[in-house]
Amino acid sequence: MPHNIAILGASGYTGAELVRIIATHPSFEIKALTGDRKAGQPMSAVYPHLRHLDLPDLITIADLDYSGLDLVFCALPHATSQAVIPSIPKNVKVIDLSADFRLRDPEAYAKWYGKAHDAVAMQADAVYGLTEFYREEIRGARFVAGTGCNAATGQYALVPLVKAGVIDLDDIILDLKAATSGAGRSAKEHLLLSELSENVKLYSVGGTHRHLGEFDQELSKVAGRDVQVQLTPHLLPAARGIILTCYLKGDAARVHQTLVDAYMKETFVKVLPFGEVPQMKDVRASNFCHIGVVGDRKPGRATVVAVLDNLTKGSSGQAVQNANLMLDEEETAGLMSAPVYP
Amino acid sequence: MPHNIAILGASGYTGAELVRIIATHPSFEIKALTGDRKAGQPMSAVYPHLRHLDLPDLITIADLDYSGLDLVFCALPHATSQAVIPSIPKNVKVIDLSADFRLRDPEAYAKWYGKAHDAVAMQADAVYGLTEFYREEIRGARFVAGTGCNAATGQYALVPLVKAGVIDLDDIILDLKAATSGAGRSAKEHLLLSELSENVKLYSVGGTHRHLGEFDQELSKVAGRDVQVQLTPHLLPAARGIILTCYLKGDAARVHQTLVDAYMKETFVKVLPFGEVPQMKDVRASNFCHIGVVGDRKPGRATVVAVLDNLTKGSSGQAVQNANLMLDEEETAGLMSAPVYP
Amino acid sequence: MPHNIAILGASGYTGAELVRIIATHPSFEIKALTGDRKAGQPMSAVYPHLRHLDLPDLITIADLDYSGLDLVFCALPHATSQAVIPSIPKNVKVIDLSADFRLRDPEAYAKWYGKAHDAVAMQADAVYGLTEFYREEIRGARFVAGTGCNAATGQYALVPLVKAGVIDLDDIILDLKAATSGAGRSAKEHLLLSELSENVKLYSVGGTHRHLGEFDQELSKVAGRDVQVQLTPHLLPAARGIILTCYLKGDAARVHQTLVDAYMKETFVKVLPFGEVPQMKDVRASNFCHIGVVGDRKPGRATVVAVLDNLTKGSSGQAVQNANLMLDEEETAGLMSAPVYP
Amino acid sequence: MPHNIAILGASGYTGAELVRIIATHPSFEIKALTGDRKAGQPMSAVYPHLRHLDLPDLITIADLDYSGLDLVFCALPHATSQAVIPSIPKNVKVIDLSADFRLRDPEAYAKWYGKAHDAVAMQADAVYGLTEFYREEIRGARFVAGTGCNAATGQYALVPLVKAGVIDLDDIILDLKAATSGAGRSAKEHLLLSELSENVKLYSVGGTHRHLGEFDQELSKVAGRDVQVQLTPHLLPAARGIILTCYLKGDAARVHQTLVDAYMKETFVKVLPFGEVPQMKDVRASNFCHIGVVGDRKPGRATVVAVLDNLTKGSSGQAVQNANLMLDEEETAGLMSAPVYP
Repeated sequence: MPHNIAILGASGYTGAELVRIIATHPSFEIKALTGDRKAGQPMSAVYPHLRHLDLPDLITIADLDYSGLDLVFCALPHATSQAVIPSIPKNVKVIDLSADFRLRDPEAYAKWYGKAHDAVAMQADAVYGLTEFYREEIRGARFVAGTGCNAATGQYALVPLVKAGVIDLDDIILDLKAATSGAGRSAKEHLLLSELSENVKLYSVGGTHRHLGEFDQELSKVAGRDVQVQLTPHLLPAARGIILTCYLKGDAARVHQTLVDAYMKETFVKVLPFGEVPQMKDVRASNFCHIGVVGDRKPGRATVVAVLDNLTKGSSGQAVQNANLMLDEEETAGLMSAPVYP
Repeated sequence: MPHNIAILGASGYTGAELVRIIATHPSFEIKALTGDRKAGQPMSAVYPHLRHLDLPDLITIADLDYSGLDLVFCALPHATSQAVIPSIPKNVKVIDLSADFRLRDPEAYAKWYGKAHDAVAMQADAVYGLTEFYREEIRGARFVAGTGCNAATGQYALVPLVKAGVIDLDDIILDLKAATSGAGRSAKEHLLLSELSENVKLYSVGGTHRHLGEFDQELSKVAGRDVQVQLTPHLLPAARGIILTCYLKGDAARVHQTLVDAYMKETFVKVLPFGEVPQMKDVRASNFCHIGVVGDRKPGRATVVAVLDNLTKGSSGQAVQNANLMLDEEETAGLMSAPVYP
Repeated sequence: MPHNIAILGASGYTGAELVRIIATHPSFEIKALTGDRKAGQPMSAVYPHLRHLDLPDLITIADLDYSGLDLVFCALPHATSQAVIPSIPKNVKVIDLSADFRLRDPEAYAKWYGKAHDAVAMQADAVYGLTEFYREEIRGARFVAGTGCNAATGQYALVPLVKAGVIDLDDIILDLKAATSGAGRSAKEHLLLSELSENVKLYSVGGTHRHLGEFDQELSKVAGRDVQVQLTPHLLPAARGIILTCYLKGDAARVHQTLVDAYMKETFVKVLPFGEVPQMKDVRASNFCHIGVVGDRKPGRATVVAVLDNLTKGSSGQAVQNANLMLDEEETAGLMSAPVYP
Repeated sequence: MPHNIAILGASGYTGAELVRIIATHPSFEIKALTGDRKAGQPMSAVYPHLRHLDLPDLITIADLDYSGLDLVFCALPHATSQAVIPSIPKNVKVIDLSADFRLRDPEAYAKWYGKAHDAVAMQADAVYGLTEFYREEIRGARFVAGTGCNAATGQYALVPLVKAGVIDLDDIILDLKAATSGAGRSAKEHLLLSELSENVKLYSVGGTHRHLGEFDQELSKVAGRDVQVQLTPHLLPAARGIILTCYLKGDAARVHQTLVDAYMKETFVKVLPFGEVPQMKDVRASNFCHIGVVGDRKPGRATVVAVLDNLTKGSSGQAVQNANLMLDEEETAGLMSAPVYP
C-alpha cells in the first residue's frame, strides 16, 4: 500500500533530492509539491533532471490540500518552517528538513538563530532526526526534525566516543570541509563558481556556526555534562559532499574499536579498517557515511575522518530513512543506491 | 530467478559502474569479478565506494569458472577483449564494453585501430549495442558489442534525422565536449587535474577520433549511402558526462518533430520542447539521454544538443539495458534511478 | 612621467583585473577607484588579493574629481556607461569596457540591447578597441570602446580570413566555450558552483547572443558585404578563459597561412604550427591569444581554434594595450606577464 | 648587468614556473634549460603557454655547459638533485628546489626519505631557503635548499609564535589542504581529474608526511627544544594553492599581534586584521603569503590560517627571491605581480 507524500519547498536542493530518492522508492507516492515562487510550473522547469518523472506541478502552500496525505516533508527555508508546520493537520506526519526544530531549548534557538522561536510549543515535541541514535523515538513520532548536515557528520564521528568516554571531552577539534549545495540554491556572491573554482574559503569561524547549537545539545546530552566542540568550516570547490577531520585526544585503537562496535549492525554507517580514511566522493549521492580512524606519530592522538553527502545522508536521505520508520516500512527502502564514483 | 553474472575487467571505471548499477538490480547477481592486476584484492580496496556491498574478491580471468554463469560483461581494455571473448563458453551470453567488436568490417577496424583484428570471425556475429535502434536483434543475441560513448551520443541525435532525410548528409558538424572518465582510469598526464582544472583541450582533431568508425558504419547503413560526419572532441574539466552540439542544415522545427516522433515511446531518450536545450549534468549518473533542438537566426540551420553520462547510458547502463533484453527481463530493470543533481 | 588613471566600476571583475595589471605597469598610476555600492571601503575589502597594493579607497562616481586625470577606464555595468561617459571632461581620455559603445549604429544597438541608446551622439565617436585591427585609430583616439570578450576571440580567428576571402562567408559556425567570469560578479543562480560543477550549459542560443551585433558590424565591414555568423555559446565549469572552435569552409592550409601572415608581427596573437591547437589554459591571466588550425578528413574544411583570457586579452588587458597607445607608451607596457600554467 | 641562469629539470611544474617568473625579471637571462626525457624539444612543445618567449631548447644535463653561468636552479626530482649538484662548478651558485638538501641531519634524511643521502658532505652546506627567516645567510650563500611548499606555509604561520613562546608547543595541530600541482606533473592515478573532481582525499596521514622532517628541524631549532607538530594533509580538487588551518593553544589576540610584529616590514607576508582569514585563491600565482588569526568561543584557542601558492611562494617564487639576494639584486625583483583573481 503506497503512502501519500507531499514535499513543501520542493524547488530547493533538498526538495529536489527528496524527489530523486522517492522516484525509485517502492511505497512512497508524491501527491503534491509546493514552491511558492515557482507555483504553476512543472517540476521539470525548475529541475530538468527530473523530466522523466510524472510529477504534480508546483503549487503554493496555501493551495495544498492535506487530505489523504500520510506524511509531509518540509524542505522550506529556515525560519519559514516554524510558521507553516503548526498548521499542518495533526493526522499528517511531518519531517522538517530546516533548522527550525533541531534545538529543544528556546533560549538556545534564540542564541544561535538570532530571533525568538515562533512555535516554541512544538520545539519540545520534535524528535531529533539522527536515525541511528533516535531510532525508536522516530519510529513512534509524528514530528521529526532533520539534523544539520554538518552536525550529522560530526555526530556520527563523535557520539559513540563521547558515550564511551574514550576521548578528552574538552579538546575536540573539528576541521570541516563542505561543498556548496549545503548553502542551498540561493544566488550569493561567495557561492559563484568564479569565486570558488580553485579556491577554499572559511566561513562562520571562531565558533559561530549555527550547527554548534546541535553539537552542544546532543553531545552534552550523551556526555551528561557540558561539551563544547571547536568547529572550523571551510567551503570547497565542489557541489556535493562533506569531509570532516576530527582531532581528538584518546587512544586511536580504542577510538576505532568503539566506532566499530557502535556501528557494527548499521546498514548506512561504515567504519573502515584501522589506519584507513575515506575520501569525500566515496559516498556521493548515497545514504552512506564512511568513517576512518588513524593514529599519529604523537601518542594519544586519534584522527577520525567522516564523510557523507550533505544532500543525502545529511538531509534528504536521512529524511526518507526516518519516513520509512515512521510509516512502518523497511528502514532502508529506497536508499540502497550505491554511491556514484567517479 | 536471479541471473548469474560475471564482470571481466571490474577494476576499470565501466566495471565499477556495472557493479554500482547491478547493486540494486532486482534479478542480477554478481558471481565473479576479474581484474588481473588487482587479483586477490577485495573490490572495496580498488573502489571504496562499493564497500557496503557483499562482492566476490577480484580474480584473474584465468581463474574464472564460467559454469553456472548466464552472462558476462567484458569491460576489458580495448584490444584485450578480442583475445578473451572467443574462449568464453558458447552457452554464456556476452556483452563487450570495449571497442573491439563495434565495427563489422575487418578493414574498417584495421583502419581506425591501427592493427588487424584478432577475432575476425566473431566481428560479424556481434550485434551493435545501441538498444533503441537494435532492440530486436539484441533480444535474441548471444553476443552484443557495446557502443562508444561519444558514438552513442551522436547517434541518438542523428539516426532518426538521417533516416527521415531531414538534414543535409554532407554537412554534419559535431562539436563534442566530454568528461575525463571516458578515457578510463589510466594515469596519463593530460588527464591530471593539474592539467585540466580551468582548462578545455581538444583531442583526436581533424577526423581522427576512433568513434568515427562507428559513426560511418551506422549512419551510412541508415542512410543507404556513404555518410561522413565532421567530429571535433574537447576534453572538459569534469569527471562524468558528454554534451554534443550538432550543427545541421535542415528545418529546425522538422528536425525537432522527427526526434519527438522517434523517441515518443522510449523510456530513456527524452526530447525537450522545441527551443530548449539540456545541460550536461541533467542526466548525471543515470541511463537517460536528453536531446534539445533550437533553430538559428540563419534560416535552414538546426542545432541539436544531446547529453548523456558516458559511464551510464554511454556504457555500463547501456550494457545493463541490453542484458535485460538478452535475459528476458524488463528492459528498464535496475536503470530507473533519477539523475543526480546538482 | 606617470599617467594618472581612474577606474570607474572598480568593484567588478574587469575593474579588479585592471588594478592587477596596472599594479606592475611602469607608467600608470591609479588615482581613483569608484564603486558606488562599495564606496567608502578599501579595495582590499572587496578584493583581498590586492591587499599588498597602496590603492585609493573606493568612492562614488559623483565624488570623483577628474582634474589631473589623463585617462579613465570605465568598467561600469552595461547601460550605465552611456549615462556616465558623456559627462567626463573632454580633456580626459576614456576607455569603456562595457557593451555600450561597441556598436556604431543606433538601430543595431536597439536591436541587440533591447532599448534605445542614451548617448547616440557619442556612439559614432567611439573607436572599436580591437587593437590589432584598429591600432592607428586608437593611437589618436580620445574615446575607445572595448570589445566583447567573445567577439574579440572570434574576430582574432576570423577577420584575416574574411579579409583574404579564403573562407565561405555564408557558412561560419562558431562553437564558443566560455568561463563564468565573463558574466561578472553578480550573484545569479546559473553561475553558482553548485549548478556548474561537472556541468556545461548553453546560453543565448539560436543567434541571440549580444556579441553577434559586434560580429555583424565588424565582419561585414571587412568583407564589404553582409556577413552573419552562427554562434552557440556554452558556459564552462571554469572561472577564466574562452575557447572558440570555428567550423569553416575553406582550404585549411591556406587558412593557416593567412593567419600566420596576418599576425606575423603581432606580439600578443600567436598562430601555432599547422595541425596544432591551443588549450584554453595556455593563455590564462595573460594578454596573449593563441590560434591553431587543423584540416579534416573531409576536404575543404578548416577548423580554427582560438583561446584567450576573457578578463585580460578579452577585456582589461586589451584596455591597457589601448591605453598604452593612447598615452604614447610602448604598446606592450605592463602586459608581458607570461600565462599562468598549470 | 644581466645574470646568466640555467634551469635543470625545466620540464616539471616548478621549472616551468621559474621560466614564467623569470620571463619578466629585469636582470635574469635564461641561458639553458635541461630536461633529460624531453631533450631536443623546444620548451613550447612541453609548455605551450611559454610559446611567446625566446627560450633555449631543452638539453640533457650531460650537455649543459656551465661556463658563464651565474646561478643554476635545480628543479630535478627528489633524489636526483643529490646526484647532480655535487658536480656543479663551485663558482656557480645553486638553488635546489627538490627535497634533497632541506634536512641538515643525515639520519633525519634517512628516516624521512627511506634511504641514505648520497651527498652527505653537502647537506651541512646548504642554507635553508625560507627567505624571511634566513635572509642574511642566503645573501652570502653559494648553495640554498628550497623548502617544501607545505613546510613553508606552516613555518610562516608558526615560526614567530614558537619564537615568542605564545603558543603551547606540545599541541600544534595543522590541517593542510593542498592543490595537486604540489605533486608534480607525474601521471598518477590519484591525481587524475576523474578521481579528484568533487573530491577531497587525505594522504600521508598519521604523521608520515615528509615535510614533517623540515617542521621538526626548523621549529625545534627556533624553540630550543624538541617540537613535533601534528600534520594532516588533504588533497583538493584544485591545481594550485595551499591553505593551512592551524589549531593552537594560546591567546588569539597575542598570537595575532606576534604575527603582525614579525611581518610588519615584510613585502610578501601579509597579516590580516584580527578576526579575518584569507581564502586560498587570494594569493594565486603570486609570491604573497596571507595569514589570518581568529579566536574561538572556547577561550585560549587561536586559529591561524595561512595561504600561499605552492608553485610560487612555496617553490619557484621563493627560489627567485633567494636568487635575487644571492646575486645582489632587489629582493622583490620580478616578483611583484599581483595575485590572479578570480
